[in-house]
Amino acid sequence: MIALTILGSNAAYPSLFRKPTAQIVSISEDIFLIDCGECTQWQMLQFKIRKNKIKHIFISHLHGDHYFGLIGLLTSFSLHHRTDPIYIYAPPSLCAIICCQIKASNTNFSYSLFVYTITNATTLLETNYTTITCFPMDHKIPCWGFRFFEKKNSRKINPDKIRTYNIPFSFYPNLQRGEDYRATNGTIIKNEWVTLPNSSSHSYSFCGDTRYTESIIPFVEHSDVLYHESTYLHNEITKAYNRYHSTAVQAAKIAQLSQSKKLLIGHFSNVFDQVDLFETEAKTIFQNAEAVKEGTTYLID
Amino acid sequence: MIALTILGSNAAYPSLFRKPTAQIVSISEDIFLIDCGECTQWQMLQFKIRKNKIKHIFISHLHGDHYFGLIGLLTSFSLHHRTDPIYIYAPPSLCAIICCQIKASNTNFSYSLFVYTITNATTLLETNYTTITCFPMDHKIPCWGFRFFEKKNSRKINPDKIRTYNIPFSFYPNLQRGEDYRATNGTIIKNEWVTLPNSSSHSYSFCGDTRYTESIIPFVEHSDVLYHESTYLHNEITKAYNRYHSTAVQAAKIAQLSQSKKLLIGHFSNVFDQVDLFETEAKTIFQNAEAVKEGTTYLID
Repeated sequence: MIALTILGSNAAYPSLFRKPTAQIVSISEDIFLIDCGECTQWQMLQFKIRKNKIKHIFISHLHGDHYFGLIGLLTSFSLHHRTDPIYIYAPPSLCAIICCQIKASNTNFSYSLFVYTITNATTLLETNYTTITCFPMDHKIPCWGFRFFEKKNSRKINPDKIRTYNIPFSFYPNLQRGEDYRATNGTIIKNEWVTLPNSSSHSYSFCGDTRYTESIIPFVEHSDVLYHESTYLHNEITKAYNRYHSTAVQAAKIAQLSQSKKLLIGHFSNVFDQVDLFETEAKTIFQNAEAVKEGTTYLID
Repeated sequence: MIALTILGSNAAYPSLFRKPTAQIVSISEDIFLIDCGECTQWQMLQFKIRKNKIKHIFISHLHGDHYFGLIGLLTSFSLHHRTDPIYIYAPPSLCAIICCQIKASNTNFSYSLFVYTITNATTLLETNYTTITCFPMDHKIPCWGFRFFEKKNSRKINPDKIRTYNIPFSFYPNLQRGEDYRATNGTIIKNEWVTLPNSSSHSYSFCGDTRYTESIIPFVEHSDVLYHESTYLHNEITKAYNRYHSTAVQAAKIAQLSQSKKLLIGHFSNVFDQVDLFETEAKTIFQNAEAVKEGTTYLID
């Protein structure tokens, strides 16, 4: 199962109703952050995200509404005496931006920070539970989409059986890896008693700022959930093109052509207080479309 | 009259209840911003601050909770096609931090940005209505306090008389400068009919992050309102010293020794949801003390 929590869904110019882009992707023990617009930390507080569990951060591109909250988050980790390393995947220059701000405050972070510079479509990371790839978008500056593949070999908790045994929730990821559980009195709970083979794995594709481009389709085809930016409505299709953004209808077209199962749209222009119209327009092309809401967790199962 | 609006009142580690430091000081036509912690733009939206009227920004020091919202604000000015220049007064390094972020986004701002580097106690700026000085605090890194002096020569609108004449609100600053008003039909409204001599001018002193230090007293004496940071309560006086911060009692002591008329305290540690105790402790030393509230405008008249 993949759980996606939306922290921010607005485009660049601030809105009273939404915050800039940030998303949490949880797959078993992995908690990933995609983009980190300003105020992301406060969204995490509000929506009760355990931010100290985040280890890998993916930054799509270096427009401020996608990363101006990052330096604050990294600083807070250090103020909280974090020791676990942080890994950031981002276009060039981010490392220099972070370093000059650390230097100005005359401090050192309490943890190691690794910044991987993205330069081409590749597999960025493999963990026990997840494989993450990146692919290029068509934006004003280098911008990357990300796809999160849940690994097939993880097993699925059997909800009917798990209640029979007193297994702590913290051990569930081990069960998903196929381990048996040994109770404190020595009793062994066999893995197959409480889990099922996980025949289907899932994937989530994140397509941040981009013009409409079918070049991304090979990278996102058959996504269980495809997130695609949708800054404008159809009547502003020329503005969308000129500003390297997309409309709701264009996002829906990508969902349709990539044969994705569900489309989520976001990155709405600040001029819209309500975003129902985006969803309505997307549904004219692709029925299973939804405008994201901040604080909502979408389960991909 | 000086109007002070509090946008943020929290210390470095994020709190759900408050935002990091930012304040608006309005004196006649001048609208100044002091510090610009993360989320300042959203606080401006919430509290209906006309951010495009801001021309001068004063940054006390380069710890993130005092400036991480600045790059977002500057970017928004440009997205809004601002053409009026912006003047920033800050310790060294800020200019480099801003420049590398502009460069990474491959854009140019739509307006001219001037960054003045503060290196010693001096008069930073004189406008038609205001004189602003800076003075050193005792903090981990170079940190500056600011004092805003309303200029004596401005006249005061007479509320009883002004209603008699149909003078547009936008002309009030000219009246405060002593000008007569010429109506569209040629009638002259003499300045002295609608204004009063402004015998008293006012001043507001901002003392950001600092250990208790009496060295600031010559710079802030006889302030009408003194804002002094108060990160901790008295039982954490040693922690305050070690971290280069102050307690509420220490802030009150500075107000007392400087013979200021009123004390405002802020920059509260995130562990406190409520801040009444800070005010209570300050009042044991200096009765006219108040813990600031975000969104509140304090009139100094």
